[in-house]
Amino acid sequence: MDEFALIRRFFDRGAAGDALLGIGDDCALLAPPDALAVTTDMLVGGRHFFDEARPRVIGHKSLAVNLSDLAAMGAEPLAFTLALALPAADAAWLTEFSAGLFELADRHRCALIGGDTTRGPLNICITAFGHVPREQALRRDRARAGDDLWVSGELGAAAHAVAERQAGRVAADAAAARLDWPVPRIELGVALRALAHAAIDVSDGLLGDVGHVLERSSAAAGEVLGAEIDGPAVPVDAALAALPEPMRLALALAGGDDYELAFTAPPASRARIDAAAADLGIRISRIGRIDREPGLRVVDRDGRRLPVNARSFDHFR
Amino acid sequence: MDEFALIRRFFDRGAAGDALLGIGDDCALLAPPDALAVTTDMLVGGRHFFDEARPRVIGHKSLAVNLSDLAAMGAEPLAFTLALALPAADAAWLTEFSAGLFELADRHRCALIGGDTTRGPLNICITAFGHVPREQALRRDRARAGDDLWVSGELGAAAHAVAERQAGRVAADAAAARLDWPVPRIELGVALRALAHAAIDVSDGLLGDVGHVLERSSAAAGEVLGAEIDGPAVPVDAALAALPEPMRLALALAGGDDYELAFTAPPASRARIDAAAADLGIRISRIGRIDREPGLRVVDRDGRRLPVNARSFDHFR
Repeated sequence: MDEFALIRRFFDRGAAGDALLGIGDDCALLAPPDALAVTTDMLVGGRHFFDEARPRVIGHKSLAVNLSDLAAMGAEPLAFTLALALPAADAAWLTEFSAGLFELADRHRCALIGGDTTRGPLNICITAFGHVPREQALRRDRARAGDDLWVSGELGAAAHAVAERQAGRVAADAAAARLDWPVPRIELGVALRALAHAAIDVSDGLLGDVGHVLERSSAAAGEVLGAEIDGPAVPVDAALAALPEPMRLALALAGGDDYELAFTAPPASRARIDAAAADLGIRISRIGRIDREPGLRVVDRDGRRLPVNARSFDHFR
Repeated sequence: MDEFALIRRFFDRGAAGDALLGIGDDCALLAPPDALAVTTDMLVGGRHFFDEARPRVIGHKSLAVNLSDLAAMGAEPLAFTLALALPAADAAWLTEFSAGLFELADRHRCALIGGDTTRGPLNICITAFGHVPREQALRRDRARAGDDLWVSGELGAAAHAVAERQAGRVAADAAAARLDWPVPRIELGVALRALAHAAIDVSDGLLGDVGHVLERSSAAAGEVLGAEIDGPAVPVDAALAALPEPMRLALALAGGDDYELAFTAPPASRARIDAAAADLGIRISRIGRIDREPGLRVVDRDGRRLPVNARSFDHFR
């Protein structure tokens, strides 16, 4: 199977969706109605996936992490490119990988418009494109003192599955599913456009990611912003019910790989945010507030500060 | 050095050029004036570069091959994303790599607007964005019978340098420079917008790449298109002057890695194309014509067909 046959067989479906021009030319052509949101993620074999991971999971997850970034911007998916380094052109692997990829792409009408394939250690680099009215993009740097802090879904299960697998144990199905099949919160991101001030997707861990929002919003506002998180309000994944309480909270606060949305919004938006999430059938939790005290503080039900380590995942540590 | 420090130190220069939002959020935001051209290339250590290649060369070339795709579309560079897998966060390597990258980026006012870094076997995936009036994009599928076939620059030296290095020899400086420091023909691509019908950049080899134009243009036109190439008119790189004539022509026809533009245009455009190239100081050669005879034929000065192998480079063969 040569490079062109591989593309034709597994990836070129002859449709470019909303793009002006798709696979097969020097470039693809897009004409977004307003601002174009662009995000790129690179996933490396043996690092982002366990070697035993099924290629269908890899196909899903490679696109899901990018769509999650579009969601965190309030952008609707438009298209994506795929660059793929493979140790060999393995038809069985490619069949499963492309099935996982396109199941998710089709759900969001997100067309594959171009890419590159080469031989090399497994590496998947997807660049995804979405559109968003430019004044409504959910940037990280727009949190304000007095905003509520919210998060969607439930946290901690994916990190628990990673820890179990790293320890050589089989993760419980519910936790493994959260790690392998993250659901990008596209519809929620779009619904929040007019309601939220700032948003980020929870990939490095809630504390680390809220920290990014505080850092950038402080710089943009020209004043120090902090946040207080109400520990008992943090939604811990039901899959972790059997674990000790401190471990559950630690996984939910610092675990990562959740791909939920953390966002800030003025208290005046509360009722509309609750209604929007209810319409979508998505659980959301109000977990704290943005203030002018430095740092990210987690408190228990009596308002006492809990000792937490906000260090989030870093590929170069 | 952690991931964020690495990005700040080597890649985040605080300017997003014409983008609405650059590095540091979930997505970058672009607002192209018309159609957005998108291209992505993945370069793998040990495969696309010789191990001894200097990181400054790798930085230049990784972006150059993408800008060459924009040139082949008639697009002006706007921005790019960089995803990078590195075996280690080596400051000396990153200093040289980023210098090579930004020297070229700055020359074309092309801003780095986002990306991803991770640990892994060396892999560089750049996605580049350009803008082009949508009706003037130089697509591969618009060649017509009767068009002249043109190519810019001189061909064959990069492939010769690859062959020399693969044989364990030191390539001559002039040939090595063509391999290591390709010059994307951005200005020529822009000048050809209103003059050419179809264009492609010569990366796989002239015959293979013209073959792509014929294949796609035939499908679009609903008739079989072929081309006759006048062998003596093919511009062979001066760095190959010492080689035997058949080897020189073979390198120029099938070598690859040239990053020149091959394009087709109606004979009525000849004078304007010559004038545009002269203005830019770029050599161009009229090397044949598109016709309705099947296949890609190369003829000598007496019109006799030369035996050529049009097979171009394929990563999975």
